[in-house]
Amino acid sequence: MALPPELKSLAAEVSNWGRWGDDDERGTVNLIDTVAVARGMAAARTGERFSLAIRLDEAGPQLGNIPGRINPLHVMVGINTPYSGDPSDFCASDDAMTLGLQACTHWDALAHVSYEGLLYNGFPASTITAERGAVRCGIHRIPHVVSRAILLDVARATGHDPVLPPRHLITEADLDAAVAQAGVEPEPGDVVLVRTGQMTHLKARDTQTYTFGEQPGLTTGTIRWMRRHDIGAVATDTMAMEVYPCEDPAVLFPVHMIQLRDMGLLQGQNFDLEELAAHCAADGVYEMLLVANPEPVTGGTGAPVNPVAVK
Amino acid sequence: MALPPELKSLAAEVSNWGRWGDDDERGTVNLIDTVAVARGMAAARTGERFSLAIRLDEAGPQLGNIPGRINPLHVMVGINTPYSGDPSDFCASDDAMTLGLQACTHWDALAHVSYEGLLYNGFPASTITAERGAVRCGIHRIPHVVSRAILLDVARATGHDPVLPPRHLITEADLDAAVAQAGVEPEPGDVVLVRTGQMTHLKARDTQTYTFGEQPGLTTGTIRWMRRHDIGAVATDTMAMEVYPCEDPAVLFPVHMIQLRDMGLLQGQNFDLEELAAHCAADGVYEMLLVANPEPVTGGTGAPVNPVAVK
Amino acid sequence: MALPPELKSLAAEVSNWGRWGDDDERGTVNLIDTVAVARGMAAARTGERFSLAIRLDEAGPQLGNIPGRINPLHVMVGINTPYSGDPSDFCASDDAMTLGLQACTHWDALAHVSYEGLLYNGFPASTITAERGAVRCGIHRIPHVVSRAILLDVARATGHDPVLPPRHLITEADLDAAVAQAGVEPEPGDVVLVRTGQMTHLKARDTQTYTFGEQPGLTTGTIRWMRRHDIGAVATDTMAMEVYPCEDPAVLFPVHMIQLRDMGLLQGQNFDLEELAAHCAADGVYEMLLVANPEPVTGGTGAPVNPVAVK
Amino acid sequence: MALPPELKSLAAEVSNWGRWGDDDERGTVNLIDTVAVARGMAAARTGERFSLAIRLDEAGPQLGNIPGRINPLHVMVGINTPYSGDPSDFCASDDAMTLGLQACTHWDALAHVSYEGLLYNGFPASTITAERGAVRCGIHRIPHVVSRAILLDVARATGHDPVLPPRHLITEADLDAAVAQAGVEPEPGDVVLVRTGQMTHLKARDTQTYTFGEQPGLTTGTIRWMRRHDIGAVATDTMAMEVYPCEDPAVLFPVHMIQLRDMGLLQGQNFDLEELAAHCAADGVYEMLLVANPEPVTGGTGAPVNPVAVK
Repeated sequence: MALPPELKSLAAEVSNWGRWGDDDERGTVNLIDTVAVARGMAAARTGERFSLAIRLDEAGPQLGNIPGRINPLHVMVGINTPYSGDPSDFCASDDAMTLGLQACTHWDALAHVSYEGLLYNGFPASTITAERGAVRCGIHRIPHVVSRAILLDVARATGHDPVLPPRHLITEADLDAAVAQAGVEPEPGDVVLVRTGQMTHLKARDTQTYTFGEQPGLTTGTIRWMRRHDIGAVATDTMAMEVYPCEDPAVLFPVHMIQLRDMGLLQGQNFDLEELAAHCAADGVYEMLLVANPEPVTGGTGAPVNPVAVK
Repeated sequence: MALPPELKSLAAEVSNWGRWGDDDERGTVNLIDTVAVARGMAAARTGERFSLAIRLDEAGPQLGNIPGRINPLHVMVGINTPYSGDPSDFCASDDAMTLGLQACTHWDALAHVSYEGLLYNGFPASTITAERGAVRCGIHRIPHVVSRAILLDVARATGHDPVLPPRHLITEADLDAAVAQAGVEPEPGDVVLVRTGQMTHLKARDTQTYTFGEQPGLTTGTIRWMRRHDIGAVATDTMAMEVYPCEDPAVLFPVHMIQLRDMGLLQGQNFDLEELAAHCAADGVYEMLLVANPEPVTGGTGAPVNPVAVK
Repeated sequence: MALPPELKSLAAEVSNWGRWGDDDERGTVNLIDTVAVARGMAAARTGERFSLAIRLDEAGPQLGNIPGRINPLHVMVGINTPYSGDPSDFCASDDAMTLGLQACTHWDALAHVSYEGLLYNGFPASTITAERGAVRCGIHRIPHVVSRAILLDVARATGHDPVLPPRHLITEADLDAAVAQAGVEPEPGDVVLVRTGQMTHLKARDTQTYTFGEQPGLTTGTIRWMRRHDIGAVATDTMAMEVYPCEDPAVLFPVHMIQLRDMGLLQGQNFDLEELAAHCAADGVYEMLLVANPEPVTGGTGAPVNPVAVK
Repeated sequence: MALPPELKSLAAEVSNWGRWGDDDERGTVNLIDTVAVARGMAAARTGERFSLAIRLDEAGPQLGNIPGRINPLHVMVGINTPYSGDPSDFCASDDAMTLGLQACTHWDALAHVSYEGLLYNGFPASTITAERGAVRCGIHRIPHVVSRAILLDVARATGHDPVLPPRHLITEADLDAAVAQAGVEPEPGDVVLVRTGQMTHLKARDTQTYTFGEQPGLTTGTIRWMRRHDIGAVATDTMAMEVYPCEDPAVLFPVHMIQLRDMGLLQGQNFDLEELAAHCAADGVYEMLLVANPEPVTGGTGAPVNPVAVK
């Protein structure tokens, strides 16, 4: 079953197809203009930096439920190799890695999700091939993400810190509560970092609950909010981003469908917001510069990223 | 043969061992403090952004001369997979990648090079293992790189634009000429981006010349300069960073040896500086904010990075 | 352009579609019955064994001209790891590998080639997906290959030992000359090993000539011969198996097209026949037991194999 | 703690160091001479064939408890790629794979296990490196395994079919019971296939029990038996081959230690003996030809294999 009528009409309402031209493959990232960048720079006041990435290693969050989405396998291909044969001389160590691009902290490319045979802006889903990946709307179309970010600490704003209840349905009201707590009004091109606290499970090494447990997350009820505020990108501290199991069990991942394919809204997952959130709670400042450049994978339908928030 | 006496004494002279404590694994990145960050923010004036990464795909710069250092192999593990079975419904595309961590645009971890059995700050080289990689001085110790950068366009400053002659030996005088052209004095924690123009070969798809040709690059004569200015990190637009074939054919990669192991100077390779350099030449502004967070590979002796320069 | 009329009618003439039922996914391997196995056993007289595989390592024959077909990257994931912490105790070494399945000595699955949207026996080519590989006619349908083999040393039989001239077009007459030299008449289910001598280039480390040079090989003129003799499988000592560049530059790989898709004839490439051929020339015995079980890759469109010939 | 005194002296007693020369890297595979091959050929009477390999795919037996030992990840790098651009013409599908070499059905190379710094025949364990793998006693030293095999169906012979109890300690008496049931006396160079029935768990998709459950297996009490009969290679239908948890919890994997490092006895794991065992029980014939050539991984400390038993 495709989207039910009310979601179809929501999709049409929030659609950004054609907004930045018929050839556009970047979606809401177009909103991150030099004004947004300047706003980001202005938000970096103390120079404190927070990496929002989880580590790339075999202890990653994947548990094998999604075929092909493997945790990073890091291997040494050379260890203190003495190039001249003499270990008192130059010795180099080299390594390699195999990983699922959506396995750890990552951005989904707009090409990550299709329905009814189409990608964002009407590109045929069939443009994604085994040979070349996503030639349209691939992650290589997003060379950088530099903007102001606002931490929307929904867990804290709704009195659920350190973590929202399982399958908590984040609503517009939740987002507004977090905005109120942040004391910063979202502006076009801002990135919103939505904290559920779900990452606390992973950090406590309870991968089972993090990955397989019922996950709090965004609902279709928040999509208009994202569109109204012209958010540049959204990221969460969960695997699924949206609530899981989904709002209506008969409709799989509607937030992904509408955000990626209709709005062209860049979305990130598995962002570690814990240290940042603690800092924001302490100093009361919820805005920051965010730089989160995806790895430039040609044709990638996603890419790992090591985002940094600078306060 | 190990380092000859004059280089041994240079190594001792510029050593940073112990400077940030006996447990330090981050080296000159310690110099990137909040003052350096603020300087970086101040250098971002117009909001124009430049990704300095080359693409991750099979057309990368590797040609098989370094065992195990393979170009990125990007593969689709799912293409428009209809989760419900119905393609009018949610369809997702997923991918995976195998790559050499030093294959494309990357930072070398301090652990990348050892000699005489030791890494930076005296950690035993034997701490690098097949099982765990570089537990000491691995790239995971560098969660972010956010600082002011200065483009040192040596090719242009020495009248060799678009590219320095093969095996041009970059000297202190060359760096000073580039500083003079830039009109910006390096300060502690700054990142210097040294442009040789070698990347023009790769961009013209002449990988053979880029990778196997004689490469212009840094010489041991520039090491004191880096130390004197307390540079936070250095990156070039070449595969080898230092001149190759090496200054003295009997001494392999002495700049790597001393910078990584003795100074603990973070170094980057295969940075694409072409578009940035053209812009700097046009507006005469050679300083910028640089954000270049390595992928957080646990135990990595290097990691891919998608650096962004913001002017 | 699809197959020209004379090849279309050849394809129809030699087709095995439906011969072993509408659900058949194994093609000519069906011909390897217990009679063929017994013939193979009878051919093993002295117990001398010859591995026909080239080694799996980075020095393999691939040179990057076929996207994704990478030479094997072998990596150690543990080296003498002391499980108890004490190296006088149990220490294990483990490894992993990434490889192109058609990179080295391999069988092509029948699913490897399609045209006009169909695979062998009429299965839709669309049954091959990124998620599941070749669910139809995948290499997992061929659990084992155990039969008599005849070495057809075309290079020697035609007076061109050690290697046929570049782009030598192997004809029925060439095969018959080799049969005459072998003194063994092919029977149904036999495997024929066609030696061109091209492997001598690879063994001399001239990968360029082996892989990129003009290759001697089978022509469409030999397809009826294979069908008439009801050959169970065919393998050669070249990358392309068929002559390359192709007979008619406007028709790419017609032998692959007709053998795999119409006849369902299992075909192997990069078999190292040198040592075996020298032995056969010395003792005059050209038949042997061949056991060449593909690795059981679920959904594989090919698989590495280490074939052994037993004389 | 190293081996306790009684096992040390057992190791010395069964040692094959020097038996086939000081340079020998093949161990008991030397026992597989042309006589053994002929015995194998004679055992193939009906031509029925049984693949003993489990499939290579993500549903493999690994559960992540051994770092780096990942289940096979099979990926398509091309799907019906039309080389000429026209899908009515030649279209090829290609694939690649990443896998742990010990993940599925495999032979351990003699280099797989060391203790006290030594490999089989006294080679230093330090000869295994990240750069080159096992240059000594690597799996590439075993180009083929062709011999008679005897199925020792311990589960059935001891009245425990379909599967031995968890952590059943297989003794000499158990092996002798299975020999008696088989009615075939082991001779030098024979391969013994020891069936515990543990594979029934994996085939029932209970990977947890197969891999993590207490496993029946060989004990140190069977080592003399292997040496006395001069077995050429041994394989089981379990992950660990020997009983697990180990006989003496303070001594990890003593059977591996002594068989691989002292005897030089090739050993295989995760062999699927179910179909073969049912056939043997039905016709009462427990000997067969076994051909089980490891993939020729240069420097491999193990390699996947698709063994075939021919009755």
